[in-house]
This record gives sequence, structure tokens and C-alpha cells, in this order.
Amino acid sequence: MAEEEYARLRELYSEISYIDQAINHLSWDQETFMPPGAILDRAGQMSVLSAIHHRKVTDPEIGRLVSVLEKSELGEEVSAVVREIGRAYRRQTSIPEDLVKEIASTQSVAQQAWQNARKKDDFSMFSPYLVKMVELKKREAECVGYDDVIYDALLDVYEPYARSSEITELFSSLRSRLVDIVKKITESGIVIDETVVRREYPIEDQKAFCDHLAKVLGFDFDKGRLDISAHPFTSGTRRDVRMTTRFEIDNLKNSVFSTIHETGHALYEQGYLENNYLTPLAEGVSLGIHESQSRFWENIIGRSRPFWSHMLPELKRHFPNMNDVTLDQMFRAVNTVGPSLIRTESDEVTYNLHIMIRYEMETGIMEGKIGVDEIPELWNDKYEEYLGIRPPTNADGCLQDIHWSMGLFGYFPTYTLGNLYSAQIYNAILRDMPDLGSRVASAEFAPILSWLRERIHSKGKLYPPKVLIEKATGSAPDADHFIRYLKEKFSGIYGITL
Amino acid sequence: MAEEEYARLRELYSEISYIDQAINHLSWDQETFMPPGAILDRAGQMSVLSAIHHRKVTDPEIGRLVSVLEKSELGEEVSAVVREIGRAYRRQTSIPEDLVKEIASTQSVAQQAWQNARKKDDFSMFSPYLVKMVELKKREAECVGYDDVIYDALLDVYEPYARSSEITELFSSLRSRLVDIVKKITESGIVIDETVVRREYPIEDQKAFCDHLAKVLGFDFDKGRLDISAHPFTSGTRRDVRMTTRFEIDNLKNSVFSTIHETGHALYEQGYLENNYLTPLAEGVSLGIHESQSRFWENIIGRSRPFWSHMLPELKRHFPNMNDVTLDQMFRAVNTVGPSLIRTESDEVTYNLHIMIRYEMETGIMEGKIGVDEIPELWNDKYEEYLGIRPPTNADGCLQDIHWSMGLFGYFPTYTLGNLYSAQIYNAILRDMPDLGSRVASAEFAPILSWLRERIHSKGKLYPPKVLIEKATGSAPDADHFIRYLKEKFSGIYGITL
Repeated sequence: MAEEEYARLRELYSEISYIDQAINHLSWDQETFMPPGAILDRAGQMSVLSAIHHRKVTDPEIGRLVSVLEKSELGEEVSAVVREIGRAYRRQTSIPEDLVKEIASTQSVAQQAWQNARKKDDFSMFSPYLVKMVELKKREAECVGYDDVIYDALLDVYEPYARSSEITELFSSLRSRLVDIVKKITESGIVIDETVVRREYPIEDQKAFCDHLAKVLGFDFDKGRLDISAHPFTSGTRRDVRMTTRFEIDNLKNSVFSTIHETGHALYEQGYLENNYLTPLAEGVSLGIHESQSRFWENIIGRSRPFWSHMLPELKRHFPNMNDVTLDQMFRAVNTVGPSLIRTESDEVTYNLHIMIRYEMETGIMEGKIGVDEIPELWNDKYEEYLGIRPPTNADGCLQDIHWSMGLFGYFPTYTLGNLYSAQIYNAILRDMPDLGSRVASAEFAPILSWLRERIHSKGKLYPPKVLIEKATGSAPDADHFIRYLKEKFSGIYGITL
Repeated sequence: MAEEEYARLRELYSEISYIDQAINHLSWDQETFMPPGAILDRAGQMSVLSAIHHRKVTDPEIGRLVSVLEKSELGEEVSAVVREIGRAYRRQTSIPEDLVKEIASTQSVAQQAWQNARKKDDFSMFSPYLVKMVELKKREAECVGYDDVIYDALLDVYEPYARSSEITELFSSLRSRLVDIVKKITESGIVIDETVVRREYPIEDQKAFCDHLAKVLGFDFDKGRLDISAHPFTSGTRRDVRMTTRFEIDNLKNSVFSTIHETGHALYEQGYLENNYLTPLAEGVSLGIHESQSRFWENIIGRSRPFWSHMLPELKRHFPNMNDVTLDQMFRAVNTVGPSLIRTESDEVTYNLHIMIRYEMETGIMEGKIGVDEIPELWNDKYEEYLGIRPPTNADGCLQDIHWSMGLFGYFPTYTLGNLYSAQIYNAILRDMPDLGSRVASAEFAPILSWLRERIHSKGKLYPPKVLIEKATGSAPDADHFIRYLKEKFSGIYGITL
């Protein structure tokens, strides 16, 4: 193999990674500690560093090294490193710099317009910018190229190697079954008492409890932090993972499940191998796989009865005003299901219907089958069809998400992929560890984390996501595991046959 | 004038400034919030960004633009911008990249060695690294060039345009008079009761009081923050100044005067003109001038009787356990004077003797008159001569400061220059504002800040520091104002003729 070329490629990629880390760090600061008056400075810093980053990623030397290495005999890991660096290089060099800049500048005005439109509940204030953004992203997709449909070229950024046709198939096997579950729960008329998690919880105590949760799940505070931001997120590197949560005095679910969710993302980041550091083998393989980790810990572990059988007594130590709450009350209160308008506030079951609506819309938009002006009406129709409720305003309808204003077409389906993957992973762990429930009930999370580390985290971008899931769980991505998981869990909670 | 060339120069300099801001931000994070395990990542990020910064500062296009502009008709401000960018360009390009790298790598090992040596109180563990560092800095100075003595080439980084000969003259007119004041105070046998500022002060309440202090002095929290670090510092930009302080439960002086000191630095940074932003006219002109701002607020305002006549009641609102303290007790407790071993813990009077010892040593070292091995003995002799005390260990002697391990020769004298400038500025303000005392006593700081903004802050690097002081105060830098200030203040406090 071409040792020298590989060493040089790693060197160049290290520089790219460090610049990327610096950019991510500045973003993190912007969401956590930056004073408001610094926004122009931060924009200037980000734009200069992004330009440097782009130049380094598209450095012709990388192209040359990748070409040489692709013709050499390489081991599996080196081959994956070269493949992934080559993919990023080809994508970035295929998009003209003028288009990159136009997308960036349109992002910032479109985001502004979206914010105003949402505030004023006026879709027409946003639609011209969305038309423009759709056109730019179509141009980007054409530059990048695709085998099947145009949407694939955009999806590829978030879920590499995935095809829209596969996702459509997965989703269509899911949709009717989800609609059916939601309908049965709604028609049962059963309303679960949520008030036990809507009492008063001093922020300081919530913070202490969330720190405890992250730690007990395996988060290494020597290599990371938990702070506060308006929208919880996780960023950083293997050695420095910054996650955030948010606190509301009268809402325990918000901080607790945001924290568990972000801890799931963070554990993935902290789980790459030290040897692979500063290569694509120490990077998350896709947003879908990333989300599978956050959702596994948040929903499958964090909203399970065994989890609260251990955590409820701990919770009571932090919040004496919870002393009267029974395990059953707690378990049910964190597992209410029902149709709602806002994706980010929806439950485990309905969440995926929110995603499907967006996925159907954005594939239609990209294929030219749906015009931007048709979005509001179509959006509302779909909510009525799938969830049985019609948004009274566009602010609570098609204007609720930031994604399209930033040109993030292809991002939404990864949320549902994450949910499907998480159930498949759960099933595989259960097979290897039949006493999973009693382990969770005694806060023995280390073996679960080890399982994930070995089969998912440590692999980085070694395999395409679909292959990774197949190798880790023994079967190709499907919707059956997820549906089975939902039916079992919520049949029990609602006492009805789903 | 060459409009196009100037516009291009400003563009290039903006990029340099933004990269500089990003580097400073990463340093700030390292001292405040970074988890310990992230240190290797941070080192990697810093090294990549520093290399990019160095390449941009030495970009031949800057040299070409500066040459063209230097031959054009330029207004005073543009001329200063070109002059300062040209100075930095020439200095940086005169030092070979190999030497830059060798200094950087020696810094990190020398700093490590210094830490260990100090811990073990063993100068011989540090001396080989110091020998190496002295040699490297001499080489740097020779590359840069100088008119008079080699030390000037190093001093120039921290106090541009200053000459060692001038500083030696200033200091020699100061030393004997300081030694005399310290001797008289020591011989008076008067010991001031400090216990009133050594009670118990909950950290939360100290934080609230420090925030209040910064705000009332004029710090704009929309464009900055006050956080905690082991060693207080200020960094950032006009729009985003990050300052830090530190808290000890039983020491009120530490947090309060660190905060006022850093607020002085921060007000300078927040006082550049928006129009000049991203040019050298929105940068501090020298460390001496910067220190004059921090020391003015810390010592001349913050340790004055009028200041505490306003602040003591406020302090009592924050700390009810201070209710019995009189203004006289408070004023005296924050103004104790006496010989001590550690520079950073020393008072307004003795501080400058600590500096002079270092200055005399480092000029001697650079001129080859003092060998590195002679440092410990000579250091102790000078402490005995100037302060009347002999360090019992090198850890409390010549190993106490980090500066030399980092190659910061030429840095120390700027501390005393700052003190001298601050007294001169005080004198000038008093001339323009004879009711200064009563304004301070009613917390009317805005007119003082306006005075500083107009004559110092807004100028940035327009003039060399010496010229700036002369224009702002009406007289060239001298030691008389400072000595007069000290004599008046401490004669009163100690009730003796100084």
C-alpha cells in the first residue's frame, strides 16, 4: 500500500478535523454563553473559518492522494477512510463555489424570513425564499448527481448511501400501522394523568438530577459538559462532547428526556476508538444511526418501567415533593400518547407520522410534484388524514420547523430511521442479554453501553448505515421491530389490544 | 490615495482578525469551561489555527499592498493602519518559520519543566530550558533587528516603539524613592487590620457583587461576560469581551479587585470606535497602556476612599456580616502596604519593586551580563536590597512567574509602565474634573469613562504609546506623578510623612 500517501492524507484530514472542531466550538458557544452583542463577530469568524475549511476539503492534493490510494491494496479500515474522504471531496468539489456561497447567503435571509413568517403566521412572507432555496438545492443535487431520483443527492448528506425508494418502502409499511395505533388509543378515550410530572421542580435540583442521569448512563464528564440552551443539542469530539438541555420549572419531562436523549448522542461520540481519532472512522456514520442512539436511551431505556423502578427513588431524593408518586403513575406519565400539532412535543408513536408528512412533502417538492404555494393546504390535509387533527394556523403547521429555511432537505427522514433502528437494536440486545430489564432496574447500564460501543460506536463510518445495522442486529432495516415494540409497550400502558 | 489597495488590505486584515478572535476564544474556553480531557484536542485546534494565522499575517500580498500604500498620500488614520499592519508583517516575515516553530515547541516543554521545578523547588530542573529559551529569543531579536540594545527587539512586541534606555531611566528615578517609602512604612511599625475583608463571603454573593461592580463601572454585559478562572484575565473583541475573576470564600479583596482590574481592561476593549473595527485602530496600543486602564480602575478609583464611601453600603447589602465595618476600616483594609515575596499578591507600592527586579534581571540576561545559573542568587540579593526580605526558596523566588518559561522577555516592565501611566492619567483627569472625588463618591463613573474613551480608548494604535500619553495628559511619561500619588495616599493612611 501507498504508506506515504496515506500518512499525508491523514495529516491533511487532521487539519480539516481540527478546523471543523473549532467551527463547532464557536457554534456551541453561540448557543450557550455568547453575549447577544457578539453575533456579528461570530458570523465573521464562522464565515472565515468555513471558507478555510472548504478550501482544505477541496484541496486538489486530497483528490490526488485519494486517486492513488484507491488503486492500492488497502485493508478494510484504511479503505473505508479513503472511501469516506474521497466521497466528501467529490461532493464538495462538484458544487461550484458560487453556489455554495449563494446557498449560505440565502440560508441566512431565508431563516430570518421564516422566523418573521412564523411570528406573523403568514406563509407568503416565507414562500419566495423557500422557492429560491428549493431551486438552489435542486441545482446542488444536479451538480452532485444521482442514480435514481434527485432527492437522493440531498438525502446522501444526512444518511449516506440511502435511497429515497428504500425509505419510501419502509415508511409505507409503517404509516398505516401507526395511524391504526394512534386511532385505537384515541378512540379508547383513556387519558393518562400527567400532572405528577408537572409539579414545581427547582432548576438547581433538576440540573443536579440531569447531571446524575448523564453520569449514571456512562457519560464521561472529564471529556464533556452539560449546559443549557434554548434547543438542546450535542456537538464536539471524542474528547470534548458538549451537550445541552433546557429547564422549565413546572415540567420535569422536558429536562429529563432532553438530557437522556443528548446523552445518547454524546455516548456515541465518546465511543469512537482512540486509534481512529481524526479519521472518518471516529465520526458518526449518519444522522439516522446517531438518532438511533439518542432515541434508544431516551425512549426504549429512559421511558421503560425498569428504568423508573430504579430512578423514581432517586428522583424522590432530589424532589421530596414527588414522594407520593407510585412507579405506575410515573411510568404512565412519561408515556402519554396522543395526536398533537408540534413535532418536537410529540410522543414516541405519533412522532413518526409528523416525520412522514414532512418526508412526503419534501420528496414531492424536489420532484416538482408539489409547488411551494401548495404546502400549507397539503400539510393540513395530511395532518387531518394521519393524525385526525387540522392545524388552525400555519405557525402551528407548515411553519413550525426551521429545516427547510436552512435548505436541510433530506434531513427529516433520518429521525424516523433512528426510531426504527433503535427498536431493532433493542431487539438484538434483548437477544444477547435476556435479563436486560433487571439490569436496567438495577442501573447496570455498562453492559448495554459496551454492546453499543462494540457493534455501533467503535465502527464510525466503517460501513454504510444499512450494513452497520445488519451486522449489529442480524437483519436489514425494517419497520416490524419498531411496530412490535410500540404495540407491546402501549397495549400494556393503555390496557387495550393494539 | 490607493483606494483599491487599502480596501484589499482591510479585507485581508479582517480575515486575520477573525482568525485571531477564534484563537482567543478557544484559549478563553480552555481557561473557563473546557473539560480537562479535551486538552489534546485544544492543542491541535490551536496549532492548526496558529499556522493559518501566521501564513495570513506573512502573506506576501500584504507586503506588496503596504509598500504601495506607504508611497501614497494617506490621512493620519489610514497611515496608522498601514504603518501598524506593515510593522507586524515585517516582524513576522523577518523570523524564519523554523525558529517560530522551535520557540513554540520549546515553550510547551519549558512551561512543563518550570511547573515541575517550581513544585519541587529545584531551579536546576528548569535552567537548561531557560538557557535554550534565552538563546532562541536572542536569535529572534537578531532576526527582527534593533537600533540600540538587543532587549529592544523583544520589548517592542509588548510596548511598541519603547526603548530599554528610556525605561531604565524612568525606573531608576523611581526605585530609590519606592525603596524609601517602603522602608518608612515598615519602620513605622504600623500594621493595618485586614481581618474585616477576611471574613466569610458566600461565593454566590461575591459573584453578584462583582457583576454589580463591573456594571456600575460601565461594562456592557450585552457585549461581554464575567466568568471564573484560576488566573483572572480579559480577552475578546469590542463586541465580545470575556473577562474572568476568581473567588475565595474568606477573601473579599481577591474577587473584588480582580474584577475591577479586569473591568479596566475590558472597558478599554469596549471603547474602540465601531468604524475602526477590524483594523489596528481598534486594538490596544501596548500592554503598558492596557495596564494603565486596569490599574487606574483597580487602584486609583477602586482603592480610594470616595469609592468605598459609595460601595461600602452596597457591600453591606450583599454581605450583612459587614454591617459593623466603618468606612475608615474598609479603606485601610484594602490599602495595606508591606514587603512580600510574591509579585501577584503585592500591593500598589511594593509591586513595582518586584517588576524592577525582573526587569534588571532580564535586560542583564539578554545582554549576556547575567548567566541563567546566576539568577537564583542574584534574585534573592535584589529582594533583600529593595524589599528587605530574602526568599527562603526559589519556588517563592525566581521560579514564581510563568513568563520566562514562555519566552515572554520584555513583558514585565509594561506592568510598571501601566502604573506610571495610570497616575499621570489620574492627574490629568483631576485637572479637567476637580470634583472627581465627589463624583466617585456618588458612583458617577460615566464622565470618567468618557474622558478615557475620548483620549485613550478610541485612539487604538493611532499613536505610539508615549505619544498617546503625552497627548492625553499633556506631559511625557514620568515617575513623578506616581510617586506624588503614592506619597499623598499612603501618608494619609499610615499617618506618617513619606
